[in-house]
Amino acid sequence: MINAKKAVGERAAAYVEEGMTVGLGTGSTAYWMIEKLGEMVQAGLNIKGLPTSKATEEQANRLGIPLVTFSDVKQLDITIDGADEIDPQFQLIKGGGGALLREKIVAKASRRMIVVADESKLVDVLGTFKLPVEVVPYGWEKTAFDIQLMEGTPHLRKDGDNTYMTDNGNYILDVDFYPIREPRKLSEALNQLPGVVENGLFIDLAETILVGTSDGRVLIK
Amino acid sequence: MINAKKAVGERAAAYVEEGMTVGLGTGSTAYWMIEKLGEMVQAGLNIKGLPTSKATEEQANRLGIPLVTFSDVKQLDITIDGADEIDPQFQLIKGGGGALLREKIVAKASRRMIVVADESKLVDVLGTFKLPVEVVPYGWEKTAFDIQLMEGTPHLRKDGDNTYMTDNGNYILDVDFYPIREPRKLSEALNQLPGVVENGLFIDLAETILVGTSDGRVLIK
Repeated sequence: MINAKKAVGERAAAYVEEGMTVGLGTGSTAYWMIEKLGEMVQAGLNIKGLPTSKATEEQANRLGIPLVTFSDVKQLDITIDGADEIDPQFQLIKGGGGALLREKIVAKASRRMIVVADESKLVDVLGTFKLPVEVVPYGWEKTAFDIQLMEGTPHLRKDGDNTYMTDNGNYILDVDFYPIREPRKLSEALNQLPGVVENGLFIDLAETILVGTSDGRVLIK
Repeated sequence: MINAKKAVGERAAAYVEEGMTVGLGTGSTAYWMIEKLGEMVQAGLNIKGLPTSKATEEQANRLGIPLVTFSDVKQLDITIDGADEIDPQFQLIKGGGGALLREKIVAKASRRMIVVADESKLVDVLGTFKLPVEVVPYGWEKTAFDIQLMEGTPHLRKDGDNTYMTDNGNYILDVDFYPIREPRKLSEALNQLPGVVENGLFIDLAETILVGTSDGRVLIK
């Protein structure tokens, strides 16, 4: 599995070209993409990275990849990131790691998004992976109630004995909506609830999917 | 003006009936409504209040109005609150005080919303009052950029030399969208931006408007 993640991560780095501003994803496959980008930068490639997490920021700093923030740039050339589920129309569920909001802001700011994954993330219908929904702490019980009215079953994410808290100071509801037959509609409806900050459905954002297989090949979709 | 606010606030309290759960608004007109409710409670009325701000919570506690939270109740009978602008279709702009998110959660949870205001809040077209939009601090510059693409002119709200911060730890962009000809469309579009938590457009929430006139009358719309 590590070989599959490494192969696909390194292959994804080949999409990055001289002068690009690159959204740097988070996770075990993105890790290998960033390692490879580090090598390319040390060999003379000029790029700027915008990290989607603290862990990625630290990795990029260690490798000498120059970083920018949204105070510097408003549009990125490319983002390379993982996903928790990918359907045949390239709609995604993300947010297992809790960083869906930052990841979505970065993906939406990018001209194209490359998704790196292993075969286990490919599904026919989204929703076996519970949909992460970031909600404001105030009135979260009411927001969970509204989500139940939309036929979801929400579970408040925990961090040991405490309520899990995102980098933005919000809670995460992991919601069982299986099967999600109309992901766009669901995403739009969730975002109209006043207590919902963002949800983990990434609609029409992924352009290319790189899938690492267990025998070490990389499929490009 | 104080007489107009007092007259309209007290008149609004008459909509509250025995046994109701009441969303308690915030502001100079809601203040008089809550004072009146306090009198009614002291005279034997049984109600429960759900406050939309810390100031309102303190006032209700002082008056002996029993309070509940969203861990206790999921639906309210009525909410009485102010507004910054009201159009002829009863669509509202709220959020001048920075509490739009909490106020919208409470209003949406209520079977009916009564709005209390003075004549100056009635407009033909919304948007002279800059629309408050609550945004996550991460990437707020990108969110402001996206709002400019929607033809709004955003101003980051300040609190003296610092950036104003909401009770939820977010920023407020006060956005000039004048004239807002399609408030529902604008509200829905803003909520689809990943960095937007909520906006100050209250669509199809107000059922009755009580307007205090400068000569002390109360108009019911």
